[in-house]
Amino acid sequence: MNITLYQFPGACSRVTMNALEEIGADYGDILVNFREGAQKKEDYLAVNPKGKVPALIVDGQTLTENAAIIWTLHCLKPEGGLFPKADGPLASHGQRADLAWCSGTMHPTVRQIRMPMRWTTGETEGVCAHGIETMLGECQRLSKRLAGGWWYGPEWSIIDTYLYWGYSTAEKGGFPLDRFPVLLEHAERVRARPSFQRVLAREQASLDKTGVEGIIL
Amino acid sequence: MNITLYQFPGACSRVTMNALEEIGADYGDILVNFREGAQKKEDYLAVNPKGKVPALIVDGQTLTENAAIIWTLHCLKPEGGLFPKADGPLASHGQRADLAWCSGTMHPTVRQIRMPMRWTTGETEGVCAHGIETMLGECQRLSKRLAGGWWYGPEWSIIDTYLYWGYSTAEKGGFPLDRFPVLLEHAERVRARPSFQRVLAREQASLDKTGVEGIIL
Repeated sequence: MNITLYQFPGACSRVTMNALEEIGADYGDILVNFREGAQKKEDYLAVNPKGKVPALIVDGQTLTENAAIIWTLHCLKPEGGLFPKADGPLASHGQRADLAWCSGTMHPTVRQIRMPMRWTTGETEGVCAHGIETMLGECQRLSKRLAGGWWYGPEWSIIDTYLYWGYSTAEKGGFPLDRFPVLLEHAERVRARPSFQRVLAREQASLDKTGVEGIIL
Repeated sequence: MNITLYQFPGACSRVTMNALEEIGADYGDILVNFREGAQKKEDYLAVNPKGKVPALIVDGQTLTENAAIIWTLHCLKPEGGLFPKADGPLASHGQRADLAWCSGTMHPTVRQIRMPMRWTTGETEGVCAHGIETMLGECQRLSKRLAGGWWYGPEWSIIDTYLYWGYSTAEKGGFPLDRFPVLLEHAERVRARPSFQRVLAREQASLDKTGVEGIIL
């Protein structure tokens, strides 16, 4: 398979990149320069008319939507370790529901905090404050489940990286993550995984190559 | 299979209900009274801690997240007609990506318009205005693709009902849907389908039974 990932370091495309690293895919990556608004320019819109990353090109077919891409990768390589084994549509439902929650609920909340101007033409303080309020509730729920382990218990899954992306990006927008020691520990475990270390190295290499500066990974 | 749908008439649970009707499932439904905030009360939180509809109980297992539920129903009954035939993870990717877009992008935008107070602690006008702006762009895109047909061309799919739910709910929040004649025609086609007619009858019956008034279906 010929695979290319369109990504921006630190954007939610890093969840897809972590999935690719975890299943041991051979892929190329192209940095879409968010700093210059490249995701909304003609060149990239020809790749992904939605003007977002990730987009994953697999043998000439363009895959979009993070949650859907991750599930497709999992189906293409079920032994790749993205999710614990679960046979059949009912047994695996919770995994797809968790992906849907990460992309459809957590992600919009994170954007309220980190990019409130993407939700309103007016004042952004109230949008950000509302996002922080929602995220505080969600992080309490996450803390209960993640204490000492991973989202599905003893086994890491790509949901752990997706959650990490969510709470760590919220923190960059001013969310008080330090109130949640369980999540700080979870974050360390996520970042310590070899596949995530390879993501960081790869994102850094793409920044170095394109000369984009000031991104904290 | 023993199936029960927790729903509120007009909420996005009607997409799940339409899926159940389309595949010919035998199911019960329970109205969660949004007018009284029942979705956030202890009784319902014991069913779905997320405090949302739909929740679908299948043989004692609780399924949540509309997009994931619909895909699970499709996998349980692939001949049920929810999506055109597509074999394998890559061929069917676009269908899951469309579900993810409906739930993760369109739905939050619709909520900006219809329920802007769910996005901010401050003024809601800017949130609503931004949502309308985003939705105008999306509806142009939808109009191009839906002219004279369905989302996937000649065959109806559950995406058509999901899109209908989106633009018709936005309209209830003040979105100028009448600028999009293609969508008005699409809406008529969606509403005319027998499975959707059964949804309307069933939602009405649940309103009558529980005495909830003033909901326009």
